[in-house]
Order: sequence, then C-alpha cells, then structure tokens
Amino acid sequence: MNNEDTRKIDTTEMSMLMHQLFPICRSITGNGVRETLKILQNLIPLQVMEVPTGTAVFDWTVPKEWNIKDAYIKNSKNEKIVDFKKCSLHVMSYSIPIHKKLPLSELKEHLHTYPELPDAIPYITSYYKENWGFCMAHQQYEQLKEETYEVVIDSTLESGHLTYGEYVIPGETKEEVLISCYICHPSMCNDSLSGVVVAAKLAQAVTKKFESAKPRYTYRFLFIPETIGAITWLSKNKNNTDNISHGIVLTCIGDKGNLTYKRSRKGNTMIDKIMEKVLKDEKVPHTVIDFFPNGSDERQFCSPGFNLPVGSLMRTAYGKYPEYHSSADNFTIMSEESLEQALHIMIKAVDAIESNKVYINTNPFCEPNLGKRNLYPAIGAGKKSSTQLEAIKWVLNFSDGQHDLIDIAIRSGMTFSDIAAVIPLLREAGLLKEK
Amino acid sequence: MNNEDTRKIDTTEMSMLMHQLFPICRSITGNGVRETLKILQNLIPLQVMEVPTGTAVFDWTVPKEWNIKDAYIKNSKNEKIVDFKKCSLHVMSYSIPIHKKLPLSELKEHLHTYPELPDAIPYITSYYKENWGFCMAHQQYEQLKEETYEVVIDSTLESGHLTYGEYVIPGETKEEVLISCYICHPSMCNDSLSGVVVAAKLAQAVTKKFESAKPRYTYRFLFIPETIGAITWLSKNKNNTDNISHGIVLTCIGDKGNLTYKRSRKGNTMIDKIMEKVLKDEKVPHTVIDFFPNGSDERQFCSPGFNLPVGSLMRTAYGKYPEYHSSADNFTIMSEESLEQALHIMIKAVDAIESNKVYINTNPFCEPNLGKRNLYPAIGAGKKSSTQLEAIKWVLNFSDGQHDLIDIAIRSGMTFSDIAAVIPLLREAGLLKEK
Amino acid sequence: MNNEDTRKIDTTEMSMLMHQLFPICRSITGNGVRETLKILQNLIPLQVMEVPTGTAVFDWTVPKEWNIKDAYIKNSKNEKIVDFKKCSLHVMSYSIPIHKKLPLSELKEHLHTYPELPDAIPYITSYYKENWGFCMAHQQYEQLKEETYEVVIDSTLESGHLTYGEYVIPGETKEEVLISCYICHPSMCNDSLSGVVVAAKLAQAVTKKFESAKPRYTYRFLFIPETIGAITWLSKNKNNTDNISHGIVLTCIGDKGNLTYKRSRKGNTMIDKIMEKVLKDEKVPHTVIDFFPNGSDERQFCSPGFNLPVGSLMRTAYGKYPEYHSSADNFTIMSEESLEQALHIMIKAVDAIESNKVYINTNPFCEPNLGKRNLYPAIGAGKKSSTQLEAIKWVLNFSDGQHDLIDIAIRSGMTFSDIAAVIPLLREAGLLKEK
Repeated sequence: MNNEDTRKIDTTEMSMLMHQLFPICRSITGNGVRETLKILQNLIPLQVMEVPTGTAVFDWTVPKEWNIKDAYIKNSKNEKIVDFKKCSLHVMSYSIPIHKKLPLSELKEHLHTYPELPDAIPYITSYYKENWGFCMAHQQYEQLKEETYEVVIDSTLESGHLTYGEYVIPGETKEEVLISCYICHPSMCNDSLSGVVVAAKLAQAVTKKFESAKPRYTYRFLFIPETIGAITWLSKNKNNTDNISHGIVLTCIGDKGNLTYKRSRKGNTMIDKIMEKVLKDEKVPHTVIDFFPNGSDERQFCSPGFNLPVGSLMRTAYGKYPEYHSSADNFTIMSEESLEQALHIMIKAVDAIESNKVYINTNPFCEPNLGKRNLYPAIGAGKKSSTQLEAIKWVLNFSDGQHDLIDIAIRSGMTFSDIAAVIPLLREAGLLKEK
Repeated sequence: MNNEDTRKIDTTEMSMLMHQLFPICRSITGNGVRETLKILQNLIPLQVMEVPTGTAVFDWTVPKEWNIKDAYIKNSKNEKIVDFKKCSLHVMSYSIPIHKKLPLSELKEHLHTYPELPDAIPYITSYYKENWGFCMAHQQYEQLKEETYEVVIDSTLESGHLTYGEYVIPGETKEEVLISCYICHPSMCNDSLSGVVVAAKLAQAVTKKFESAKPRYTYRFLFIPETIGAITWLSKNKNNTDNISHGIVLTCIGDKGNLTYKRSRKGNTMIDKIMEKVLKDEKVPHTVIDFFPNGSDERQFCSPGFNLPVGSLMRTAYGKYPEYHSSADNFTIMSEESLEQALHIMIKAVDAIESNKVYINTNPFCEPNLGKRNLYPAIGAGKKSSTQLEAIKWVLNFSDGQHDLIDIAIRSGMTFSDIAAVIPLLREAGLLKEK
Repeated sequence: MNNEDTRKIDTTEMSMLMHQLFPICRSITGNGVRETLKILQNLIPLQVMEVPTGTAVFDWTVPKEWNIKDAYIKNSKNEKIVDFKKCSLHVMSYSIPIHKKLPLSELKEHLHTYPELPDAIPYITSYYKENWGFCMAHQQYEQLKEETYEVVIDSTLESGHLTYGEYVIPGETKEEVLISCYICHPSMCNDSLSGVVVAAKLAQAVTKKFESAKPRYTYRFLFIPETIGAITWLSKNKNNTDNISHGIVLTCIGDKGNLTYKRSRKGNTMIDKIMEKVLKDEKVPHTVIDFFPNGSDERQFCSPGFNLPVGSLMRTAYGKYPEYHSSADNFTIMSEESLEQALHIMIKAVDAIESNKVYINTNPFCEPNLGKRNLYPAIGAGKKSSTQLEAIKWVLNFSDGQHDLIDIAIRSGMTFSDIAAVIPLLREAGLLKEK
C-alpha cells in the first residue's frame, strides 16, 4: 500500500460516502440498515445477514423490526412544525405508530429536548419499551403555543429481522483480526458513521493489499447494530471467538480531537502494544486509556465470558463532546484529515499485525559476523551506526524466543517499520528463523 | 451506623475519656494499667488478662510488676522541687525504690532532660535494667543549686503480672479483624492515649452495629502494653494467628497533622487496599507509606515469622513531632476533629471489610439485559450514565472471580460505597452470586 | 582497604600507567597488544594467552596477525607530511604493506578525515577486508597539493596469533566475578585505555585485599581485544560461563562526565542492584540506563545464547563525546579524579559483592530481645534510633530467606555498608545465620 496515494484517494471517498449515508433513518433493525449495507456493498462484497425477531441471543431476544415512512406534528393551522422527512432524528427511534390530535400539555409528555443544547434535535430511543415520541430543538419547544396538535407517526413495529453486514477476507490461518463498527444510528456523523466509513475503506484497502497473496490473518469486518447486533453476532459465533486474535472497534473517529486508543480489557495484548506503538511511531498526538465497561461494542467483546483482545480507536469519546447524540453531531464537526489519519493508522496497524512474529536468532552465542554477510561496513570508521545496523543488532539480540517484533520495537525505541525492515535481510543471511 | 450521629456523640466522649485516662501513671505492668482497663470497661466489656511475671514469651520473659505510690525530690529547704503527684512523667518508668540524701553531682546521674525541649519533662523508661531516675524540664535542671537533695521513690518492683485487655465480638467466621492499641504510656495524649480512645469508641460502634446480627468477621480489640504486651499476646495465641485476616494498629492519631497509613509488611493485602481506598474515597488528606520495622506493635505482628496483614493508622508518626515522648504531648496538641475523623475512617474501613467479597457474574457472555430487570432507563436518552448504572457495569464486567469489590472500586475510580451499593440489586436480579 | 589511601596512591599511578601505554600502536592482534600486556604484568601477574590465526570461534575466525614498523606519506619534496611514528592513528589499522608513488587523486581514495573535527586524526580500521589507508586532520587534507606522493606502509599481515591477558584470583567458590576491558585501541585515552588502567588497578587492589584470606568469589580480569577477543574468550570458555555470577565491562571511564551504569540484558540481577546502590550510597552523580545491543563487549557477554549478568560502567558513552575515535581522545579530556572515583566505586562494588548474602533470622517470631544481648540502649529514652539499631531492625525483619542484604539496603534506604555492618553483631548474638 502506498500511503500517500491511499490518503489522497480515500479522503474524498470517505467524505462522499458519509454524505450518502447521512440522511438514512437507521435504527437497530429495519430498512435503514438494509439501505446502508447496500451502499456499502458498492465498496466491499458485504454479506448481509438476517436474524429473525424472537431469536434468543444470550440474555436477550432479537426485537421486532421497526420501519418508518413518515412522521410529523401539525399545529392548528395545519402547518408541519416538526417533519421527520427533514431530519430523521425528529422521531424517537422505535416509536410505535400513532395518529391523533391532542393538546399541548399531552403532547409535551412525548417531546424530548436538550435544554443545554437548545438548537439541536436530541437522539432518543425506546427499543425495549413500546412508546412514541418526537425530538425537537429546545428553542422551538419553548415557543409552542397552547393549541391542538396533530401527531402522525407512520411506522411499523412487527416481526421481521435484525440485519447486519459481515465481510471476511480469508487468511492463511484461522486466526482472525476483527474490525467492528455499528450501523444503527440515524442522521449523525461522528457517532456511528465515522467508524463505518473508516471500516469500509479499511476493508477495501486490506482487500487490495492482499489481492495476489492471502494475508496471514483472516480479516473480519462487522457492520452491526450496536449492542444487540454485537450480542447477536457473538451468540451466533460463540464457538469461534477463540479465533479472534486481535480486534478493534471503530467509533467517533471523524471529529477534530486527537486520537484515543482504549485498551482491551486484558490491557497488554498484542493489539494493545501494536496500536500504542503505531500511534507513537506515526507521531500522531494521541491518548491511551484503560478499558472501562462503558462505550461501544467492546463492552460485549470484552464481557468477562469472552474477554477478547479487542480495543477501540476513537477521537473524542462518546459523551465527551457536546454535540453527542444530537443533530449537532453533523458534518460541521467532521474533519477529512481526521478520517484520513485514522485510516492511515489502521493500515499501519494491519501492516504491523501481519509482520509481527517471534523469530529465533540461529547464532545466539556472541554476535554473528555481519561483515562476511555484507551486513556491516567493511571499514569500521564513522561515529554513528546506521538505522539498519541498529535494527539488526536489536533484532539479533532479542530474538531469543521470548520477544516478538513489537516487543523489540518498543524496547529499542525504534519504529516498528525500522525493526521489521531488517527481517528479510537477516532471514536471507540465515541468521534468523521463525519460532 | 449513621455517621453524622456517630461523629457528634463520639467527639466529646473521646475527649472526655482521654481526660479521664490522662493523669494515671501507666507502665508496661502495674495498677496503672488495671485502672485504665477498668475505665475502659465502662464502655466495652473488656476481658482483663493477667500473665505472671517470669512467663517465657518467645525470646522474652514477662518482667516484674512495677507499682508506684509517690516520688519526689526535695531541696535542702525541704521544698519538693520535683513531685510525681503533679506529673507522672517525673519519675523514670520502672524506677526501683530509693530514699537517700545526695549532693547535686550525684543526683545529676539520675536526672533526665531534653535540652532541645527545655520546658518539657521527658518520658524515660528502664524496663529491663534496674535503675532509678527523675525527669524534669531542662530549664529547671539548669537552675539546680549545689546543695543536698533528698530523693524518694516509693515504688515496688516485684513478682506480679502483666495485665492487658481484650475484647472480642464473635463473627460468622473465625476470620478475624484485629485492632490493637497500647496502654503502657503514662500521662501523654497523642502517643498511646489517642489510639486507645479511638479503639475503644470503635469497639463500641462495631458492637452497636452488629447488635442484631453477627458480623461476618470476628473483631478482636487489644489494649496491651506496647512491645512486651504484643509479644505476650502473640505467644499465648501463636496457633490462632492464621485467623487474623486484617489488622490495624492505632497510634498517634489525635494530633493536628494529616492521617498516615503505614502498609503491612506484605504491602498489598486487602487491608492495605481498603485503608488506602477509604482514605481516598472520604477525601481525607493523607499519606501512605510502606512498612518499616520501627514503630509500634506492627513490628511484632509483621515480624517475619508472623508476617500478618496488619497495617497502622496514625497522623504525625512517632518521633516526627517535637513533643513526642515528653510532657508536651498533651491536650494542647490534640484535636477533637482529628479523633473524630480517625474514628470515621475506621468505621468506613469496617464497612468495607464486611462487604468486600468476590462475586461471580452469572451471565458472563455479553452484558445482561438490564432493561428487562428495571436496572436500565427505558428511554435511552440522556448523555450521562447514572452513578448506579456505572457501578452496575463495573461490577458485572469485573465479577469474573478474579476481582473483589475493592479491586473493582480501585480500578473503576468509583467509591467503594458506590460499588458496594449495587450488589443487593444485582443479587436480587439473579445477575451475581458469591464466589 | 583504606579508601583514603587507595585514592591517593592510585591516582598518580593510573595516570602514569596511561602515559606509558598511550603511544603504543595496538590493534586486535600483534606486538602492540603484547607490549601492552607486558607493561600490565608489572602490576599484576597476567597470564598471556595466544590463539592461532584461523581458529574458529563461533561464527568468526581468528584473523591474521598484523604488525607495523613504519608508515608515512612523503610529498614531492621528500618531506614526510604524515608520519606514523608521530601518531599511531595515522595509519588505518590492519593496513596491508604498500610502497608506491601516486598522484593526489589516487592517494585521496586512501585518506580518511573527519570534516566535523578538522583538527583531529580519525581512528579507522579495516580488520576483515584487506586494504590500506592513512588518516589525517581534515585541515591538512584540504591543503594537499596536486603533486606526486610516496606512500610507505611497512606492515605485515600474516598467520600468527590473537593475544590477550587473563588474571584470576581464586576464590572459595567457583562462582566468578568477571571484569573485562579491551586492549586493542591505538593511541587514545578514554576509549580503551581508561578502562584498562582502572581494571589493572582494581585487580591489584583486590589481590591485596585478599592476600591473607581467599575471597568468596573467584575474580577474573580480562584484557582482550574488543569483539573478536571477547568472542574468542567465550568460545574457549563456553562451558564455564555458568560460573559467571556477576560481571562488569569497563569502558570510557576517564573523561569528565558523570558515571553511567548500563544494566545487564537481564536488567535486575544482583550486579545491577549492587552497582546502582553503590553509586547511590557513594552520592556520586550518575545515570543508570538499560541494556542496548550496541557498545563494548557486553554485546557478546549479553548475547542471547549467553545472557550473562554483565553490566557496564562508563562515563560519557562511546560515540557520545565529540572526541570519540580520534586523536582528540587524549589526555586533555581525561581527569585523574574521574579514574580515582571509578576505581573507588568498583572497590565498593567488590565489597558489596563479597558481603551480600541471604541470612535467616533465627528468632523470627516477634522481635528478639536486643537488650539482653547488649544491642539495645538500656534506658529507653532518646527520640532517635541509632543507625546501628535501625539497621539491626531492618536486617532482622527482612532476613526471611527471601531478601539478600542488597535487597534490604535498597528497601530500607540505608547504605549497604550500614546494613552489612551489623551482620557480625547479629551472627555473634546468634540471631542470624546464613541461608
């Protein structure tokens, strides 16, 4: 992969893709999810999975499928003062169908606003208790007059399916790298869509990278509804989760904040070491935080029964930016550079995952004679060792079967790339073999 | 226990108790100890133990019993220039009886002063070598004239007993919490008495707390002479020390300095974690220090043969405040708030000890459905999770059999109380069971 | 050893010895090495070892022996513009014999300079590729005229031997302390010679210290050519390296910078703990760095097949001072105090190595009665414990079979000397025995 090229092409594409996906009214089930996955299928050959309502998934049950055609509130002058067609957030997700006239006092019981964010429409859901509601800017709410309103929600909540997308790139081994994002949020950018577009472009990049030769790991990309989707996927794949060697949940990754890596629950797995080292090597301003049991689907992957080595990459965490879960989480808080940088980091992480191995120095007693293998300058002059020679010495000394390349890179302070670059030389020279 | 009430009542009582105990001339044996224990029996049903002189206790022997009625120095004008009845520190502890006239030069060999603390009477002992002596302010010492003095020490040093008090609150299990303080120091406040009054009030509070139902742990309170008393107690109870699961030595805890927790020798036992967490949770300014083999009776409890999980709670450590071991260690350096706060911390520690357990999430694969158990808000709105919901997630995720509640509280950064508060909810919901 | 005396005597001797060794043209083989070892034999009974050219040593082969009588460059006026007899660095080490006339352009292919250090003659070698060359100040190089030059190198490169010196002080046990330095660098001070003179004087001091009674450890001092010498020695002694319990490579130890201790590859061995503690105890400004696989012969001793507990003591590390590997690495950058301090630290380290043991408290239940053994002041007064009493308490409490004296010294914050000083007292009192 030529990173320069990757960056230039992807940026626009990721932004365009997000514009395409933004208006769709998604929820944890329904046609919004199907439409979203269909658009993603233009980029990658996603397999779309349908799990019937009522399916038992661990402690949960796949809920009814929710679909919506229209929703509005009219005032007494027959003016639409709230119109779902203008913004899918106006209706509370999973609202049951309703059509009635009612006074303001009664209407207010079904209105949701954020007084602290008076311009924004809140994002509100009621997945597991049947109810209906509208969301609006608090500013508008405060100007509602005492009159009779007509509310219409033209939705259905019926037996159907939970839909998700899955894309697998088979590798040489069954060991898997899991990349997960969620496609259940309606018209918002950072929460949900930013992860979706980075995951989709990463899937495309990994596919292209391994066109001619299989990757070492199997790569699995999940585009699932948050929580219930992850629970459903884990329930259906419970017996294969041992194959998941490394995983990342992508969320809130398009805003202008610095990158944040949230460690897996185990906290010191290979993916944790690789993500931290790649972020450092790439000189990207970032923060690393320990696992906590709140957040996105790492909550499920890292539940104690699974405890998988799955971390999470994001920028400003869910709930930590003021526009979170509202119509203000839109393109104005997005940055193309942020998406591009996140994709770049993920591509470097895949590079590292693929090449990280434990090697054995075949010549462990004293240093091998590098000169006779043309790996050492014949004239021992100069005052500084080259980067290559430094890397050779680190790799030879620490390839004792106890350290993989990421360990050596971390200990040496050299970049993972510099360390990995000498492996072919040393293998060709017969000085190194795989453990 | 209602902490507000506890605080209000105890403060005055602790101060009053200390005033009552202060004048008594205590030593490592003798009637001063008995009188002290008798006063404490007004608060708690202390059992008074008597161990005969000559009893072998490990490397030591219980010494002769020392009692004193009077002691003074008269000058040639027959004026009492030093009078034991005015301050029990005036006579060196364990002074043998003496009655003689002697010149200043000879007297001086038996006088002890602190030149660096010229107003204060030193606290001096000679337990294991027979001798006699007087202690006085250095200021007074410097004005002594060349004349003949009459010294009288009306003491006895004879076969008798070493006396200590013990109070046990039986628990559901044989596992014990040991609270130890020492009752061997004569008229001083911070060193010795402050620990005694906090231990006595704590014993009273624990008794009251478990009036209707036994505590989980057995609580044992020791009021012993320092060093020889601890050695004697350990010698008599050598075969039962395995039952001591947690312990605290209370010392120098009434002055105006910040609290200091001195870790057990093992350094990372449950009592260490609990004391540090309680001090943090209660937002009490404090310091935590590692074990060192100097100090009070933790020296014996943490001797290598026992190595018990016993820490020590104090304020300004022994020897670190200028008034230490002198008549200046009196009420002027005490603070009622300090005693009250120390008691409060110990009560919170008992709460934590009682409720700290390892639980098992009965539903470890993915998060359980909290909504259907009314543990999750039906409308998924709001931007912030409640404290209760946070605690539920932490407890469920880390109740994997490897973490007790104090571990979870430390890792989460939440208070132990917030973590412990959700246990009944989760047990009732069938989501948690004891390991 | 009386440190005061040691310091006064050695300083001058080390400086004088360095002056004696400085002019000799050393390389990895040849008579320069033999001459150097002969001078060292005036101080210590070094055994001189000769290993034939062609001997296989691990991945390497002992090279031909190189000797040189003369070398110069004459200009067209028959003036010697470069003269080996003035500075042995003028000829590239291992230059093959040459005698020819040649124009400047051709000569330049064999000239080496440091443009960034224009006054200094570089130190250049070509051990493993046959070649010839001259080194000169860049300033001089820039003024060379277009004319015909005569170059003469009167050297031989023939089958012979690799020579090194070894000195062993037998101890009570086979366990060894290895002190290594290298004698292959021509006329430079800090790199090579500073380590040689400190090692030689240390050998002398250790010999003297154990004149009357064998040391506990066997002490082995190596004066070897760097890299190939270490490889040769390890090859010949491969089966005995398990005896090496502690080791130090001495290098670049005479300049004016602070001391640097480079840890062994294992990083937490006894020698690492001792060196760090001695540097701290002696209040010597210093830095401690982790092992890295560049440097001097610790690269071989700490190669993964051996992984010996060998650290390295130096001041400004190789390559980190501007005069490194040039004629500017001479007496002007040396400091007698630096050599003296380094020797002093090594002597203290030997003291610690000899006396560091694991002891067992024979009286582990409670504190033993120190008073009856005259180890405790009879009158328990005073506010401060003596250093001796502090050390006694630390040693008794932590002599549980898990901690050696260096562990106790580190944990207590007391000096190793203070801790070690109480061992005889405690053993005599029957309170301590060797594990």
